[in-house]
Amino acid sequence: MNASLEILASMLPKDVDAALIISNENRRYFTQFISSLGYLFLTREEAYLLVDFRYAEAAEANARGCVVVPFKKLSAEFGKIIKKHDIRSVMLEGSAFTLNAAEDIDNILSENGAESIHSDELDKLITKLRITKTSTEVDKIIKAQRITEEALTETLRLIKEGVTEREIALELEYKMRKLGADGVSFDLIVIAGEKTSMPHGTPGNNKIKPGDFITFDIGALYEGYHSDMTRTYALGYVNDKQRRVYDTVCKAQKKGLDAVRGGVVCGDVDKIVRDFIYQAGFEGFFGHSTGHGVGLEIHEQPALSPDSDTVLQSGMVVTVEPGIYIPGEFGVRIEDMVVVTADGCINLAVLPKELIIL
Amino acid sequence: MNASLEILASMLPKDVDAALIISNENRRYFTQFISSLGYLFLTREEAYLLVDFRYAEAAEANARGCVVVPFKKLSAEFGKIIKKHDIRSVMLEGSAFTLNAAEDIDNILSENGAESIHSDELDKLITKLRITKTSTEVDKIIKAQRITEEALTETLRLIKEGVTEREIALELEYKMRKLGADGVSFDLIVIAGEKTSMPHGTPGNNKIKPGDFITFDIGALYEGYHSDMTRTYALGYVNDKQRRVYDTVCKAQKKGLDAVRGGVVCGDVDKIVRDFIYQAGFEGFFGHSTGHGVGLEIHEQPALSPDSDTVLQSGMVVTVEPGIYIPGEFGVRIEDMVVVTADGCINLAVLPKELIIL
Repeated sequence: MNASLEILASMLPKDVDAALIISNENRRYFTQFISSLGYLFLTREEAYLLVDFRYAEAAEANARGCVVVPFKKLSAEFGKIIKKHDIRSVMLEGSAFTLNAAEDIDNILSENGAESIHSDELDKLITKLRITKTSTEVDKIIKAQRITEEALTETLRLIKEGVTEREIALELEYKMRKLGADGVSFDLIVIAGEKTSMPHGTPGNNKIKPGDFITFDIGALYEGYHSDMTRTYALGYVNDKQRRVYDTVCKAQKKGLDAVRGGVVCGDVDKIVRDFIYQAGFEGFFGHSTGHGVGLEIHEQPALSPDSDTVLQSGMVVTVEPGIYIPGEFGVRIEDMVVVTADGCINLAVLPKELIIL
Repeated sequence: MNASLEILASMLPKDVDAALIISNENRRYFTQFISSLGYLFLTREEAYLLVDFRYAEAAEANARGCVVVPFKKLSAEFGKIIKKHDIRSVMLEGSAFTLNAAEDIDNILSENGAESIHSDELDKLITKLRITKTSTEVDKIIKAQRITEEALTETLRLIKEGVTEREIALELEYKMRKLGADGVSFDLIVIAGEKTSMPHGTPGNNKIKPGDFITFDIGALYEGYHSDMTRTYALGYVNDKQRRVYDTVCKAQKKGLDAVRGGVVCGDVDKIVRDFIYQAGFEGFFGHSTGHGVGLEIHEQPALSPDSDTVLQSGMVVTVEPGIYIPGEFGVRIEDMVVVTADGCINLAVLPKELIIL
């Protein structure tokens, strides 16, 4: 077993003999092995990665900290391991097992005198590990962020009146992948004009025109790790209201960044940002949370949301992304991704945040 | 209710009062509404689409055959509907509900005097509907296929010694999206040389060289519908063994296409193709199934696999994709996607299948 698997094994409740992990992210997290199917079975003595024959050779070469067990029929190989370790109770990864998948596993377990525990308890244990990042993980997130910023900088040159949101989004993704991204962190959000009032609008065939805000909420995927950033630009000119909203969001975001450090409660960061926006006269125009964790998933723990009592720790990677959205008019969001430290945070984004009029 | 929802309601077992559907594909299939979250609750009298407030306006405008119910807190709105229709037992979509999601729903149900049924029965009922396609669905699949073929034709011009698999795959995807694809059907497979012996290899940074086979297993996504095709080309020259394998796969694929028609058992189509390849001396070198259904998912029912006793019906869309894979040397696969008719099939792919040496 490697260190992360040993820690997880030590965290299992006393009445549990083993854990079964099937999500791609968690299999990858614990074994470093990338596959679209496989069963990571963690007993107190040993960890096993059961993979079908297609993955056998690659898993033998690349999986870390576990015994690779190729199978043609899962029940046969899995049954042997259950018996060998005298396993009676197995926690399933409740966020990943579908009802149908759990039924298949439960049948195998009961044939071998064992039973499963259906709950979110295993997810919570794994979150405790994944919520802080190692330096190796942070390096990959930084690489994803560098690619994003370089691609965005190149793409800004293409923006002019008449170009569509969809064209810009496609060029941006193409550039990210040319720069070495394995893909995008999520369907890129590139929206302009009135559409910027929707926090999660999708790029369409509408053309950009002078006076529009253009919101880029974008990220790249690099070796399994995500990046996430948002910038809002303008084309040609802005009116006073646009400028006032932009300045408010920019200041609110700075307040959020200033508040992030180890030991601070996530909900308190959200409150500082939210209070500032509300007091500036925009209560009711900032509907989402201030931020979220980023790693092997684009949204993970911790949540920088009003009701979160999670305490920030060094090594967490979180976004700070306030916005103001005025229906029928426009919206502004500014987002950086930071690594939490004992006395503050390191901002992983370097692109400027003052209002840029293209 | 629209026709598809009425049919599904009429298929529910007698002791079941309602069905709860949460997968993006099935929500879209029954309501035509695209969203990343939502609950389609089908009672015998009425269908409800519960969506969070972000989707309320779009759902009201675009969802078909159902009453849109926006919610801030799911339990409140869902509870009202359960009580209104005196619902006691609800079938869950077992292939889509995770254990954690099912637990949340079960809590709401039990608070309202109802309980859920955890099984794959609802999935099976829905498959019976989705397994044959309407002409509207086929039109979208054809559009996805046209985009794929046009993009591939353009991309072939870029292939020369020294270009990498990854560069080709990226250009191909870029062209598909320029041509109107919403994305790719799956991570495009563009592999060359020895790697073609792996049915599901991923594009890497290795360079294409003369004498290589280059396998394209590719597809585009258009309005939710997938396409799927495979062509194997060569660069510069081929040796006798490569030519013999190519010809065998090409003939096997034609035998498969000739066998597809309404009333034929899927396993029999597979057997015709498999027997031909084995008798040509390649037993042990064709490890996967002959084909699969295509639609809102890239792999759906029916399976053209050895053990499938599903009977082909008019309106099914299936692939026919035999291959021969010689470890350490090379592989060849040829795949078309067809619509089954009463007396044969309509091939949706038009690109030639004789060996093309680039």
